[in-house]
Amino acid sequence: MSGRGPSNYMHIGHLVIFEFVKWLQDELDAEVYIPLSDDEKYVFGKVKSLKQAYVYAIDNALDLIALGFKKGKTFFFVSTRLSEIYELSVTLSRYLTFNTVRATFGLEGEGVNSGVVFYAAVQAAHILLPTAKKGLLVLVPIAMDQDPYMRLTRDIALKAGFRKPAAIYSKYISGLTREPMSASKPETSVFLIDNEEEVRKKIWSAFTGGRPTIEEQRKLGGNPDICVVYEWLKVFVFKDLKNMNEHAYKCRSGELLCGECKRMLADALIKRLAKHKARKRQALRVIDHFFLHEVEIPSEIIKILE
Amino acid sequence: MSGRGPSNYMHIGHLVIFEFVKWLQDELDAEVYIPLSDDEKYVFGKVKSLKQAYVYAIDNALDLIALGFKKGKTFFFVSTRLSEIYELSVTLSRYLTFNTVRATFGLEGEGVNSGVVFYAAVQAAHILLPTAKKGLLVLVPIAMDQDPYMRLTRDIALKAGFRKPAAIYSKYISGLTREPMSASKPETSVFLIDNEEEVRKKIWSAFTGGRPTIEEQRKLGGNPDICVVYEWLKVFVFKDLKNMNEHAYKCRSGELLCGECKRMLADALIKRLAKHKARKRQALRVIDHFFLHEVEIPSEIIKILE
Repeated sequence: MSGRGPSNYMHIGHLVIFEFVKWLQDELDAEVYIPLSDDEKYVFGKVKSLKQAYVYAIDNALDLIALGFKKGKTFFFVSTRLSEIYELSVTLSRYLTFNTVRATFGLEGEGVNSGVVFYAAVQAAHILLPTAKKGLLVLVPIAMDQDPYMRLTRDIALKAGFRKPAAIYSKYISGLTREPMSASKPETSVFLIDNEEEVRKKIWSAFTGGRPTIEEQRKLGGNPDICVVYEWLKVFVFKDLKNMNEHAYKCRSGELLCGECKRMLADALIKRLAKHKARKRQALRVIDHFFLHEVEIPSEIIKILE
Repeated sequence: MSGRGPSNYMHIGHLVIFEFVKWLQDELDAEVYIPLSDDEKYVFGKVKSLKQAYVYAIDNALDLIALGFKKGKTFFFVSTRLSEIYELSVTLSRYLTFNTVRATFGLEGEGVNSGVVFYAAVQAAHILLPTAKKGLLVLVPIAMDQDPYMRLTRDIALKAGFRKPAAIYSKYISGLTREPMSASKPETSVFLIDNEEEVRKKIWSAFTGGRPTIEEQRKLGGNPDICVVYEWLKVFVFKDLKNMNEHAYKCRSGELLCGECKRMLADALIKRLAKHKARKRQALRVIDHFFLHEVEIPSEIIKILE
């Protein structure tokens, strides 16, 4: 299982971990659970209302279904809409003191709201739902920053008599500006709803390992080790190591100019996004089969997909 | 609305506040919401599991439906089974800090579990559900010990943009031993599932205002002011003030012996419980119409009602 906090539209970096999850599903014929934590984003103040988070949750779910997860083996749910989640959270909350939550997350003082305190139990419930429901062992591909939750959950699982879940951590991909990708800084990543022009513009402004002038680039070569465009090409475009190494060699030798790499990346991403959008439209027709509760499609989503 | 914490079978004292709620429904043609807080009883450690609380919740609901609440105007729910409750609790939790919860309830230190902290928001959600769902104004007939929750809820309501709920507090009825009635001390009250023999035995051991001997009673009279049997007769048997005053006069004058009052009370309660049990059996057939979610009847309940 792997979750998504629906506080915004998704960018291309978000897909990477779920592509890995899909790969695991294909390899292991595993069931996949994908909680959409509207409650998390709301109690931490990342969205104004649960309603707003719900719109993102459905949008994000469509993006993920578009990756090709198996129907009947993949189960999405919006955290506040599945009463089993609250029930399991309550069960687990007895094994989780305020003190532990505060120490684990370094919450500031006691002005923290009660939803934040309880959310630690809710996230544990997300992770342990497949175990509680069907006795399944759980593997959680997860971003490194979610590690405190994993540790808490493993402790709680033991106390509550469940098998401990396992985690597998993903590396972050650099943002285009070399800061971390962030939904609140659109220039750091390519969003799945960006149009062609936006993609080109963002890639064009990306941080590279290139020289200030063409002459210097030809003479001294570029530095792919610090180049975000090269990093993105590795993640999103190149199929194998040979490909990657050849490209890096050409860069270092001065054969490639940054513009060429940027065009290559932008073209590939634009193609990918177009394909993604088509698949997302198809996902709209099957979304009901992927959810553990009833789903209404917000009108905003229909508009985006027109 | 008025709630019930399902940590045990109900005793006759529990019914009093709900008889008042039913009277309000009849007088005002009002909708009545009755949350059954399985989560509360579990996080505070009053039941071993949510499953155990669920059994009591259904049993208790049948007792309340048996009072004659109107179908289509009375809405029961088990707190962990109605996803709207968790959703509303999350919404409200942002207006409720850990600090406030701790100060209000005098929680001991920070070893308190995260479920207890969040439960303050959940109880607020129980109270505000009719307002959030239908814009209704809420009146809460409630036992005095629930006052801190009411005050919190009124504060939260204001911050969250809801109309404040109003409360009306009930007096406690003395337990048979003159301690407060308590489910954990069976001798303090008459349970709705007690059989005839148990009722007679409990009433026979009740605290009275009588004299040590018949001679003294005849000569000096009894003291109804401190007599639990007299208090119970007032609540459960006498129809009007005249009745009450005449009875008190006869007691004081030495005309009545405690045994007579006890027999009178026991007979009335036994009759009442038999009638109640019959109505509870009927309630079993209509319970679905009274719940906001699906209900399964635990086998324990069927057994009790056979």
